[in-house]
Amino acid sequence: MKTVITNGIIVTMNRDMDMYPEGYVIVEDNRISEVGPMAALAHRVTEWESSRQEGISIMDAGHGIVMPGMVNTHCHMGMIPFRGLGDDCKDRLRVFLLPMESRAMDRELAGLSSRYAICELLLSGVTTVMDMYYFEDAVAEVMDQMGIRGIAGETVMEEASCDAGTPREAIALGEELIKRYRNHPRIQGCIAPHGTTTCSSSTLQAIHQVNDRYGVPFTLHVAEMDYEMSYLKEQYGCTPIEYLDRLGILDSHTLSAHSIRLTEQDISLMAKSGSSVAHCIGSNTKAAKGVAPVSSMLEQGLAVGLGTDGPASGNTLDIFTQMRFCANFHKNETGNRSAFPAKDIVSMATIWGAGALGLDHVTGSLEPGKEADLVVVETDSPNMFPVYDPYSALVYSARADNVRDVFVAGRCLVKDRQLVYQDFRQIREDLRQKMNQTAFGKMGNLV
Amino acid sequence: MKTVITNGIIVTMNRDMDMYPEGYVIVEDNRISEVGPMAALAHRVTEWESSRQEGISIMDAGHGIVMPGMVNTHCHMGMIPFRGLGDDCKDRLRVFLLPMESRAMDRELAGLSSRYAICELLLSGVTTVMDMYYFEDAVAEVMDQMGIRGIAGETVMEEASCDAGTPREAIALGEELIKRYRNHPRIQGCIAPHGTTTCSSSTLQAIHQVNDRYGVPFTLHVAEMDYEMSYLKEQYGCTPIEYLDRLGILDSHTLSAHSIRLTEQDISLMAKSGSSVAHCIGSNTKAAKGVAPVSSMLEQGLAVGLGTDGPASGNTLDIFTQMRFCANFHKNETGNRSAFPAKDIVSMATIWGAGALGLDHVTGSLEPGKEADLVVVETDSPNMFPVYDPYSALVYSARADNVRDVFVAGRCLVKDRQLVYQDFRQIREDLRQKMNQTAFGKMGNLV
Ligand SMILES: [Zn+2]
Ligand SMILES: [Zn+2]
Repeated sequence: MKTVITNGIIVTMNRDMDMYPEGYVIVEDNRISEVGPMAALAHRVTEWESSRQEGISIMDAGHGIVMPGMVNTHCHMGMIPFRGLGDDCKDRLRVFLLPMESRAMDRELAGLSSRYAICELLLSGVTTVMDMYYFEDAVAEVMDQMGIRGIAGETVMEEASCDAGTPREAIALGEELIKRYRNHPRIQGCIAPHGTTTCSSSTLQAIHQVNDRYGVPFTLHVAEMDYEMSYLKEQYGCTPIEYLDRLGILDSHTLSAHSIRLTEQDISLMAKSGSSVAHCIGSNTKAAKGVAPVSSMLEQGLAVGLGTDGPASGNTLDIFTQMRFCANFHKNETGNRSAFPAKDIVSMATIWGAGALGLDHVTGSLEPGKEADLVVVETDSPNMFPVYDPYSALVYSARADNVRDVFVAGRCLVKDRQLVYQDFRQIREDLRQKMNQTAFGKMGNLV
Repeated sequence: MKTVITNGIIVTMNRDMDMYPEGYVIVEDNRISEVGPMAALAHRVTEWESSRQEGISIMDAGHGIVMPGMVNTHCHMGMIPFRGLGDDCKDRLRVFLLPMESRAMDRELAGLSSRYAICELLLSGVTTVMDMYYFEDAVAEVMDQMGIRGIAGETVMEEASCDAGTPREAIALGEELIKRYRNHPRIQGCIAPHGTTTCSSSTLQAIHQVNDRYGVPFTLHVAEMDYEMSYLKEQYGCTPIEYLDRLGILDSHTLSAHSIRLTEQDISLMAKSGSSVAHCIGSNTKAAKGVAPVSSMLEQGLAVGLGTDGPASGNTLDIFTQMRFCANFHKNETGNRSAFPAKDIVSMATIWGAGALGLDHVTGSLEPGKEADLVVVETDSPNMFPVYDPYSALVYSARADNVRDVFVAGRCLVKDRQLVYQDFRQIREDLRQKMNQTAFGKMGNLV
């Protein structure tokens, strides 16, 4: 099976940042087999078209931008029912999120919510997602069914959570998950401690040990909250990053989410360890938590990807919104309009994000041999004209709805803005009905 | 002619902030005649439907959000050809913008570009726009043809511009424009000095005098640029706002665009004068110019609207993007997640923006007697579920592409996401061809 995508502005995001203003990509089975300028293809297309060879389909990108599928490095897909609930409320974690989670969240709701979230992700061009939440066995199943690439992180808390009474129980669920997907081509499991203060040090170390044994990422919320900073300062006289380092769990598998409050010393420790960051600028600034020191992270060579955080915090799951936030916040923060150029922002959204998840040998760029995770962004809509520079167009002009087609592992999952294998209306209806049977049904939802 | 919009979440933005979770709006000719909960309408709808009375059409909002048309308080519609050109370039004003403007901009290009921009505005739910650029007679004509509500501000510079050799000439063009549209129901002309340092004090005063005579807004770039701040400090020992005040041209007709660098004293002066602000957060932060002190402006009672700035600076012309930037930047700036709640952000996008233009008696809220400028934002797309609070949904979740229908002065200009009276493809093609006949055709545009 071979798909030839023609007449695109090809943004490869390979090491040389090759870009073909008029180019093509060939997808064979699950992989990319060729990328180049149209000139290198020309007569072959006419041959294929005239011979109508079976198993070859030609897809005209129509001068759209063909780019690697985007990587969302931090999400909580089970939380769609929370989107928009108490957004501007001062203490919403305690007023809305925690009580509703314990009252209403179950395996079925987490699964239906994740199915919904994956529709949103795919339709907006995200082909790889790092998720952390509860009932991640259900989440991984749904990732598998829906065809997205993903890592399902079973969250562990010291306190009882909605799917486990003790951290030991949650860790066991997580290890089960890791083992089940060990040989899966697209899905991985991992165990994701909730954060530096919501897990004990022994729990953190126990989780790290299991993840390490299987070589899967170790992701958690780090250096995000006021109380986190002061608690660790008081208890251990150190920063969250120093704390992880002292526990021996800061290494090249560590993916720190948020990491807003870092010292230069923290960043050096992270760089030395080879660990990565999931930068969630939209969620962080909406919650008035500040702007993570990404320019310093990048200077020191950290892999930084973009994350939306969950729909409760960041509301939308697309990476275009995060790219634009990222550019504007960091340009403004550094006082330099040339800082964080569009190319770097697109890198975070694709190849650097893949690197942060340890998946840059698999996805994040358009290169022969890599998995065919790619997106066609149309340039016909009013916001997409003119295009002088595709990186600029992607960061400063494009929106999620400009995504026309999406491939994951060579399968076309979105075509002409529609999910190919899924009935989105039904998925939304299933979620709505389930929500209405729980405490969410009494929260005044209007649609 | 009567249109009854049913089954909407009605966000009136009236003084009491009435919101009807299931409501209706009746449009008669160019005005709103009724707004209320569905219960108040019920049997009348069935009567109208069964009698199929001529001149009454029923439009089901399908649980979408019905809101006032959005107001873009600062735009340069003639600059579509510049979008994405040298975005991250350090000195792009001097390297790209000014040379291309003088080489390539003419009346035809400004008109075609504005026609294109109005498509983008309408499709994204903007029903009122304050424009300032050159050849504004062509811009006003296009506003009129396209059906949008707008103020066309003929820009005046001390130096020769692309449509006038001297400020006197530009002022004459502007006065002509004001007179031509004096009795137009939707369009106004005004004269817009470019800025505080690009016009002499006598030019500023001369412009103010003409605008004042006709009672039209006086808008200009104020307190935006480094060199502006230092130049006025050196020359006059004052801030830009103090300068306007000393010249006697800071009053209730003054709409200051940007106004990033204000002292508390400046804000007091502005408040006392009753002048307004066009806040362009996206453009300002992309250019690393900082975040305007809006929380202090609002505390002191200034009318603050949102503006996109031109497509060269802000890239996209929709107000949803600005709402989201506005919320996140100001929450983060104030360190308070509850600051700038969604209701205030939607107010800036609608009724406060209308107030900033002196048009709040005409547009900006859904109230009987006002002009029927309104938007239906669908809630069917993945990013729009669930909705607990329509303000939250509009600010944190919605995008321009969620706009389904748009009315200006009672005319339905956008229906089911399509322009009713315009062929967008042709408009883009006309612009592209014209661009290709100018120096823009050699700037490497890819689509
Ligand atoms: Zn999170
Ligand atoms: Zn401007």
